Amino acid sequence: MAEDQKFVEDISDKDDDFSKWYNDVVLKAELADHAAQQLGGFMIIRPYGYAIWENIQAALDRRFKETGVVNAYFPLLIPESFFAKEAEHIEGFAPEVAWVTEGGGEILKERLAIRPTSETIIGHSYARWVQSYRDLPLLINQWCNVLRWEKRTRLFLRTSEFLWQEGHTAHATLAEAEERTRMMLDIYQQTVEEDLAMPVLPGQKTENEKFAGALRTYSIEAMMGNGMALQVATSHNLGQNFARSFDIQFLDTDGQRKLCSTTSWGASTRLIGGVIMVHGDNAGLILPPKIAPWQVVIVPIWRKDAEKSLVFEAIGRAEKLLKAAGVRVKTDLSENNSPGWKYNEYEMRGVPLRLEMGPRDLQNNAAMLVRRDNRAKESVSLDGLAGRVQEILADLQHSLYARALKFRQENTHEISDYAQFKEFFLSGNQRGFVVAPWAEDRAAEKRIKEETKATIRNYPFNLGDNINSDMSGRKAIFTDKPAERLAVFARAY
Amino acid sequence: MAEDQKFVEDISDKDDDFSKWYNDVVLKAELADHAAQQLGGFMIIRPYGYAIWENIQAALDRRFKETGVVNAYFPLLIPESFFAKEAEHIEGFAPEVAWVTEGGGEILKERLAIRPTSETIIGHSYARWVQSYRDLPLLINQWCNVLRWEKRTRLFLRTSEFLWQEGHTAHATLAEAEERTRMMLDIYQQTVEEDLAMPVLPGQKTENEKFAGALRTYSIEAMMGNGMALQVATSHNLGQNFARSFDIQFLDTDGQRKLCSTTSWGASTRLIGGVIMVHGDNAGLILPPKIAPWQVVIVPIWRKDAEKSLVFEAIGRAEKLLKAAGVRVKTDLSENNSPGWKYNEYEMRGVPLRLEMGPRDLQNNAAMLVRRDNRAKESVSLDGLAGRVQEILADLQHSLYARALKFRQENTHEISDYAQFKEFFLSGNQRGFVVAPWAEDRAAEKRIKEETKATIRNYPFNLGDNINSDMSGRKAIFTDKPAERLAVFARAY
Repeated sequence: MAEDQKFVEDISDKDDDFSKWYNDVVLKAELADHAAQQLGGFMIIRPYGYAIWENIQAALDRRFKETGVVNAYFPLLIPESFFAKEAEHIEGFAPEVAWVTEGGGEILKERLAIRPTSETIIGHSYARWVQSYRDLPLLINQWCNVLRWEKRTRLFLRTSEFLWQEGHTAHATLAEAEERTRMMLDIYQQTVEEDLAMPVLPGQKTENEKFAGALRTYSIEAMMGNGMALQVATSHNLGQNFARSFDIQFLDTDGQRKLCSTTSWGASTRLIGGVIMVHGDNAGLILPPKIAPWQVVIVPIWRKDAEKSLVFEAIGRAEKLLKAAGVRVKTDLSENNSPGWKYNEYEMRGVPLRLEMGPRDLQNNAAMLVRRDNRAKESVSLDGLAGRVQEILADLQHSLYARALKFRQENTHEISDYAQFKEFFLSGNQRGFVVAPWAEDRAAEKRIKEETKATIRNYPFNLGDNINSDMSGRKAIFTDKPAERLAVFARAY
Repeated sequence: MAEDQKFVEDISDKDDDFSKWYNDVVLKAELADHAAQQLGGFMIIRPYGYAIWENIQAALDRRFKETGVVNAYFPLLIPESFFAKEAEHIEGFAPEVAWVTEGGGEILKERLAIRPTSETIIGHSYARWVQSYRDLPLLINQWCNVLRWEKRTRLFLRTSEFLWQEGHTAHATLAEAEERTRMMLDIYQQTVEEDLAMPVLPGQKTENEKFAGALRTYSIEAMMGNGMALQVATSHNLGQNFARSFDIQFLDTDGQRKLCSTTSWGASTRLIGGVIMVHGDNAGLILPPKIAPWQVVIVPIWRKDAEKSLVFEAIGRAEKLLKAAGVRVKTDLSENNSPGWKYNEYEMRGVPLRLEMGPRDLQNNAAMLVRRDNRAKESVSLDGLAGRVQEILADLQHSLYARALKFRQENTHEISDYAQFKEFFLSGNQRGFVVAPWAEDRAAEKRIKEETKATIRNYPFNLGDNINSDMSGRKAIFTDKPAERLAVFARAY
C-alpha cells in the first residue's frame, strides 16, 4: 500500500496548482514528454497520448469525408516569397517561423519556411488546378505537422511543433464559402461535444483575434477545470484575400473569369490538452469512452495458484466477450504489481471503466465494475457483461459532458460594469467566463487585456435563454459605446 | 469520339518511353503534382493518390498493431549533435540533410536537421524511457514526413520530402532484435503481395547497400514493368550501435546493466510508384482492388430524359447494394462528359471494375461489368450483383499478382559470366534481374555499378526450386572469388 499511496501523491493537487497538476498528469500518464534540452519547445507524443489522437482523428476524418472533403498532402516547406504575397498573413506569422537556409550541402537562394499553416502553398496549387466552375468546390484537408516557434511552451497546449488537420476549400461564391466555414465549425462542435464530451461555445472572433489574412474567423471555445478558456478549433472565411494574392480564378457559367472565395479550418493535438483539463481530477486523467484507447481495464485478483488459473480463464472469456462487442479492452495480468497498484495506475491513466475479477466474483459468475468518473461499483453477471458495459460507457460519456456543462454554466457570469469585471479577473477569488456587452474596438480590447489578462474569446452565437442578448439601450463595457453584441471574456491558454 | 481518342493519346507509350509514360500517368490520373518551381524536388500528393496511400497505411498499420506495435510521434527537428553521435549514420545522411538555422527571429546556436530518419532522436528518448528489462521490448512506430535533399527527383520514387512510417524497437537481446527485424520484413512482404498484388524478393542487403549505422539490412525488391528494380521496404537490425551511441541501457534479470539491441524498419509513399510501374498499361493506371480508392465506377448510358430517370433510379439501387456489401463505389452522373469519355477517364485512373447501365440492360434487369485488367465484359443480373462484383474483384486482385509474378520470372536470368552480364545490361535488348554467384566485395560491387549501372539488390532468401543455390565449386561473377551465395543484380530506382 505504501507504494500505491506514493504514486497518487506524485500528482499535484488540482485546486492547489492547476498548472503543475496538468504537467504531472501529462507526464505520469505517459501522454507526452519533452523532446530534449536542445529542443526547448518540442514534444514527443507518447503511444498512450497518440492513441487518443488516433481516435480523435478518426472521429473528425469520418465527419469531414461525409461532407465531401478528401485528404491530400502538401509540402512541408514554403518559399519566403509565397508568404510575402498576403501582407497580413506574413505579418501575423513571421515572428513564429523556423527557416531552412541550407539543404543538400548548399546555402539556399531563397529561405524556406517550415509551414506554420499552409494557405500560401495550397493557394499556389489551387491557382493551377482551378480553371472552371466545374472544378469547384475544391474540398481538401491535410493531416500534418506544423511549426510555430514558441518561447513559453506547455505540452499539447503550446508547442513549437504540433500535429493538426488543416482544411482548405475554394468556392465560386462568397456565400458558399461562408456556408462551408460554418459547416466545418458545426462539425468541430459535434465531434468535440459528442466524442470528447467537452461542451463548447461557437462564435465569431473579434478583428484583433481573427486569423491573419481572413475575412472573418469563427471558433469554438471550452472552459477548462480552472475556469480558463481554450480555443478548441477555428474556421476561417478567407473571402477573396488569398485568391487575389495567388490568382485563384475560374471561368464562371456566364463566361466571366472570377476570383474564388476560400476557407480554411483547423484542429490540433491541443484538443488532448483540453480533454485533460476539462475532465481530469486529483487521481489523474478521466477519458471519455469514445476516445479512450482502452475503455475497460481488466484486473485479476488472486492469491493461490489454483485461483490464478481459474481467474485467468474467466478473464480470457470476459475479454473475448467485450472485444466481440467492439469494446476496447486492456487486460493487465502482470504479476509484479499488486491489484491496488493497478487500480491507481489505470485511474491515473483515465480508463473509464475497471473490471475486477477474483475468486469470489467467479463463484457468483460475476465481475465487479468500477466507474472512473464517480467510482460507483456494480457487480455484473458475466452473462450480461458486454451489454451492461456498453450501457455504462454510454452513460459515463454523457455524464462527463453534463458535468462539464454544469461547471461552465456555474462559472459563467454576466457583468456590465468594468470595476466589477476587473475585480473578477484580478482578485483571484473567482474564475470562469464573463459575458459582457461589447462594441468592436481594437484598441480598447488590447487595453482590457493589458489590465486584466482577459481576452474576448468570441461573440457567441447563442448563450441560451438565461442570458439576455437584446442590446437595445445597453452600453459596451469599458468603452461605454452603444453595445453591438455580447462578448465572452476569459483568460485563455 | 475525337475527344476520347485524344485523351488516351496524351499518355506516352509504355514500351516507347517508360519514364515519360510513368510521369504522364502520375500527372493525368492526378496522383501527384510538382509543388512549385521554387521547390524543385517536392511533390504534392493529390487526393486520388493520397486515398491510395490511406489504404496502404491502413493495411500496414493493422498488421503492425497485431504484433504489439504502437504509434507515437517524435519531433521533426534533430539537433546536429545527436546526428554526430553515430559516425556511420551522419556520414551516410549528411549530404541529404536540410538545416534549420533560424527560428522565432533568432539565429539558432545549434543547427537543427529536418529528420531524414529518426534513429537518433528516438534513441535519445529510449535512453530515458528504458530502465529495466520490464520496459522491454519497446515497439513503437511513427507515420510522418521526412526530408532528404535530392537533386534528381521523380514523383513518388525519389522526392526531397516523402511520407513514410518508421518503426523503432528496443530489445534485451540481439536474437530478439533479429527476430523482430525479420518479422517486420515478413509483414512488408505480406502486405505488398496480398494488398498491392506486387510480388517481391526478400533478402539481405550487401555491406555497401545497408543502412548507415546498421548491423545488417534486409529488403524486399520488386520488378517494375521495364525490368528495373524498386526497393520497396527495408528492415534493419541495428545491433547495439545506436544503443551504444545513445546509452540505451537496461537492468537485466541478473542484476547487470546491459545495452539494448535495436531495430528500425520503413516503407514510404514510393510504394505508390511501385504500384503504377508494376501494374499499369498504355491506357494508364491499373489499381489492385484492395487499395483502389474506388473499386467500381458506375457509368450511366441514356439518350432521352425518360431513359435517364429510369437509369438513374436503377443505378441508385445498384450503388446501394454494392456499398452495403462494403464495395467502394464511384458513381459518375455528370452530364458534361460522354460515357465514352468516362470509360477512358476511369480506365486511365485504374478503377478495377466498370459497371455500365443503360436502357437495354434495364430491360433485362442487368448491368454490364467490364474488368480493367483484361477488359473482359460480362452481363450480370442485378439480383446477384454484389456477390458477383466481389468475386470478380478477388479474381482481379489475384490475376494482377499472377501476371506480375510471371513477368518477373520471365525476366529473371541466371548469368555466371561477366561478359554476358555486361552484354545483358548494356546492349539495351534485354531487361530484368540477373541472378549471379557472388562473394562479398565492396570495391568490386562498385566497379560493376560503374560499368553497368547494375547494383546488387539483395541476397535473396529463396529463389525457388528452379534456381540452383548450391555454391560448392562455383566462382563469383567478376571477381572469380569462391562464391558465397547468389545475388540479384538489377538497375534500380
